[in-house]
Amino acid sequence: MRLGKLSREDLERLILSKIERDYSVILPPKYGEDGAVIKQGEELIIVAADPITGASRFSGWLSVHVNANDIAVHAAQPKWFLSILLFPQKTTQDLIEETMDGIIEGCKEVGCTLVGGHTEITDRVTEAVIAGFMIGVPMIKGKFVTSSDAKVGDAIIMTKGAGIEGTFIICSDFEEKIARIFGHDFVKRCQKFREMISVLPDVRSVLDYLDYIHAMHDATEGGLLGGVYELSIASNVGFRIYYDDILIREETRMLSEHLKFNPLKLISSGTLIMAVDKNFADDIVSNLRKNGIDSAIIGEFVKDEREVIINGRREKVEESPEDELWRVLNKLSSKE
Amino acid sequence: MRLGKLSREDLERLILSKIERDYSVILPPKYGEDGAVIKQGEELIIVAADPITGASRFSGWLSVHVNANDIAVHAAQPKWFLSILLFPQKTTQDLIEETMDGIIEGCKEVGCTLVGGHTEITDRVTEAVIAGFMIGVPMIKGKFVTSSDAKVGDAIIMTKGAGIEGTFIICSDFEEKIARIFGHDFVKRCQKFREMISVLPDVRSVLDYLDYIHAMHDATEGGLLGGVYELSIASNVGFRIYYDDILIREETRMLSEHLKFNPLKLISSGTLIMAVDKNFADDIVSNLRKNGIDSAIIGEFVKDEREVIINGRREKVEESPEDELWRVLNKLSSKE
Repeated sequence: MRLGKLSREDLERLILSKIERDYSVILPPKYGEDGAVIKQGEELIIVAADPITGASRFSGWLSVHVNANDIAVHAAQPKWFLSILLFPQKTTQDLIEETMDGIIEGCKEVGCTLVGGHTEITDRVTEAVIAGFMIGVPMIKGKFVTSSDAKVGDAIIMTKGAGIEGTFIICSDFEEKIARIFGHDFVKRCQKFREMISVLPDVRSVLDYLDYIHAMHDATEGGLLGGVYELSIASNVGFRIYYDDILIREETRMLSEHLKFNPLKLISSGTLIMAVDKNFADDIVSNLRKNGIDSAIIGEFVKDEREVIINGRREKVEESPEDELWRVLNKLSSKE
Repeated sequence: MRLGKLSREDLERLILSKIERDYSVILPPKYGEDGAVIKQGEELIIVAADPITGASRFSGWLSVHVNANDIAVHAAQPKWFLSILLFPQKTTQDLIEETMDGIIEGCKEVGCTLVGGHTEITDRVTEAVIAGFMIGVPMIKGKFVTSSDAKVGDAIIMTKGAGIEGTFIICSDFEEKIARIFGHDFVKRCQKFREMISVLPDVRSVLDYLDYIHAMHDATEGGLLGGVYELSIASNVGFRIYYDDILIREETRMLSEHLKFNPLKLISSGTLIMAVDKNFADDIVSNLRKNGIDSAIIGEFVKDEREVIINGRREKVEESPEDELWRVLNKLSSKE
């Protein structure tokens, strides 16, 4: 089988089509939705599950944040986290401790509590695997946002910068190599992109406008372009984005020129993508900026076409883009 | 590192001691507790997480049931399931489909709905890994049972038989070999033990007595003895159980004599262990039997000692027993 997530077709055929309707599940699992919304008595809860591979303070921490982001895009606060940790036999006690400390640190940052899990040393994994599971509650009682309600005519807003997570990963994994090209200060600035990996501050900044935000999504694999694409598929609309309006941080741009990758397709957890009523788009952007979060209107959702306008030229987007990260990391490894 | 679950000491030192108090978490994670109880608004929810390795209809199905059992022992109904499935590259499409069908089948049996997850082909695992997460709600509104409230003087009740899951696994994995010894009918009877793997029917049968049930636990790894031991540690009490009163099904007894293992230490999901007010123990047992579930009073919780009375002799239990399953399966493999 091909490495990576199951294709949309397989996901729908093998599993989604076989799930029976349950009226307590208000937002059932669906391609492009990172969480489900459940009604339990008078309360709504939002749930999400995502794995991370690799053991370190960073991967424990990241497993909390990626799951917290899946909750946050539904305008919900992450509250309770569970994690299943599977370590290979070669793992050390220190690595386990570091990973768990990362989980505790991540939980503090997003404001949730670790409520359970399972930790095991097993020969079934070659690298540590962290399966995270987050439960959240609406930030505003009774309200939530999905990734599938973008409407034709909605403005597309993005925050922070395309490829921020990838920029951080490249400069962490190949610290010395990048420092030899761009200097140590550059590397340090890129590593600080880690602090932008949560979309919680972004979502909290726009709560006053929740009624005008039709959909939200976090740009993970496939980068900004992948995120916009997934949101458009889930919402059954097209999109037009303008390359010149897209936020690309200086460090990411320099890396992308040197390493020849497309920053729009670089993994970008922390970049919030919103579909908003166009009459409120400017207000939402200024609210984000007031809270210190870079943001911009980068295009609109349209009826059919999916395209990027670059130098006045239309570039069609026909499928979910492959992320640039693995190619870049491989290139950097082979140059060693 | 040694294969298996993290030791109690490591679990407490590395993670449990670092979790901050959260007043919404009524039953926090703790050694011996398989789930946590959370208060969200006016509602209680119960959450649990457990992994299974291996890909097949059986492992998908089992991942639902082991998580459902973790919820059921809190006197709660499993409602919503999420699963992270990681398959190695060698996996086939058919194996993925079979695993997912098992999940759907398991969900139907326990009465829960699949609400999310993540499926990926990855080179980080050598065998399929299924990380399951279950959310449940109290069977009786506002009420739940823990694994840590057994009291000195409580009667110990067990259901179905020691080692039922192990008996099923042995006769499924080594069908031909066991049939050559005991015949095909014997193997078929053992394989039907699969139908006893859920403790949900057991718990549903005793709901009228919930106020007199102080603790419940499902006998998984370490078997019946491991389950009683864990419950006693979590509750900070000792126990005395009488070998002659322990339910051991004829098939399990025959296998144990032939393969030389202790049926009390054989993995036994589906065997419910209860600590109950001794004045109601007989009523609870007869209610279980009325519902077609074998059960027996096998001893009592005491102040300090942990022991099995066997032929009038006391056998001390000093530590959590190692499960017999791996030794038995290895023995059967090497005889091939």
